[in-house]
Amino acid sequence: MPVRNSQNIPETPVANGVGVRKAVLISAEEAPNFAMRRFTIETGGGMPLHTNLVEHEQYVLRGRARVRIAGEIFEVSAGDVLFIPADVPHDYTNIGNEPFVFLCLVPNQKDVTTLVEG
Amino acid sequence: MPVRNSQNIPETPVANGVGVRKAVLISAEEAPNFAMRRFTIETGGGMPLHTNLVEHEQYVLRGRARVRIAGEIFEVSAGDVLFIPADVPHDYTNIGNEPFVFLCLVPNQKDVTTLVEG
Repeated sequence: MPVRNSQNIPETPVANGVGVRKAVLISAEEAPNFAMRRFTIETGGGMPLHTNLVEHEQYVLRGRARVRIAGEIFEVSAGDVLFIPADVPHDYTNIGNEPFVFLCLVPNQKDVTTLVEG
Repeated sequence: MPVRNSQNIPETPVANGVGVRKAVLISAEEAPNFAMRRFTIETGGGMPLHTNLVEHEQYVLRGRARVRIAGEIFEVSAGDVLFIPADVPHDYTNIGNEPFVFLCLVPNQKDVTTLVEG
């Protein structure tokens, strides 16, 4: 897999999300250390407050969202970069009038998503 | 560093490149497993054939380039994803009429860039 077009990669719905889809651009099976995924949150959609066992490195490609990280609120849009450490509660709400699309990279380690009362 | 705007991050010239600049979006000091960088290759610029000790996971944000990976030629543009394994010769030539801009993520491991006769 030297090169692939990310638009041709199938998407799957994300559990616990409202209008959230995921495409795996570079999988943990293909790469030795970390995986690249693209998430799309439809207008009006979002991901509730949750934690993961692994950190996230994210890059916003399109749209606008309100993101809460460790209790702090941010409004993010294309070109913004997010670092969410492991075990830190975070959520996403699409506040724009188009899909909110971002890359999310994670290490090749066991992950568990745990919903948090927010 | 929960959130930062990638447009505000200083860029540095890349050794061996022609018209190539790098911005570190998430550094190896900030993240436990891998770093996120953004490379910009100006119109007419490029990176000569070289190898690295670490793999690259790349996402094209803007522009067009011809990329050679392990002897195979690809033309890439926005939305294309590249996986370049460690030790594989690769180069980049901007073939568009605007900057070629891409994210490049690497594991937090020692790297050496070695130019290769092409």
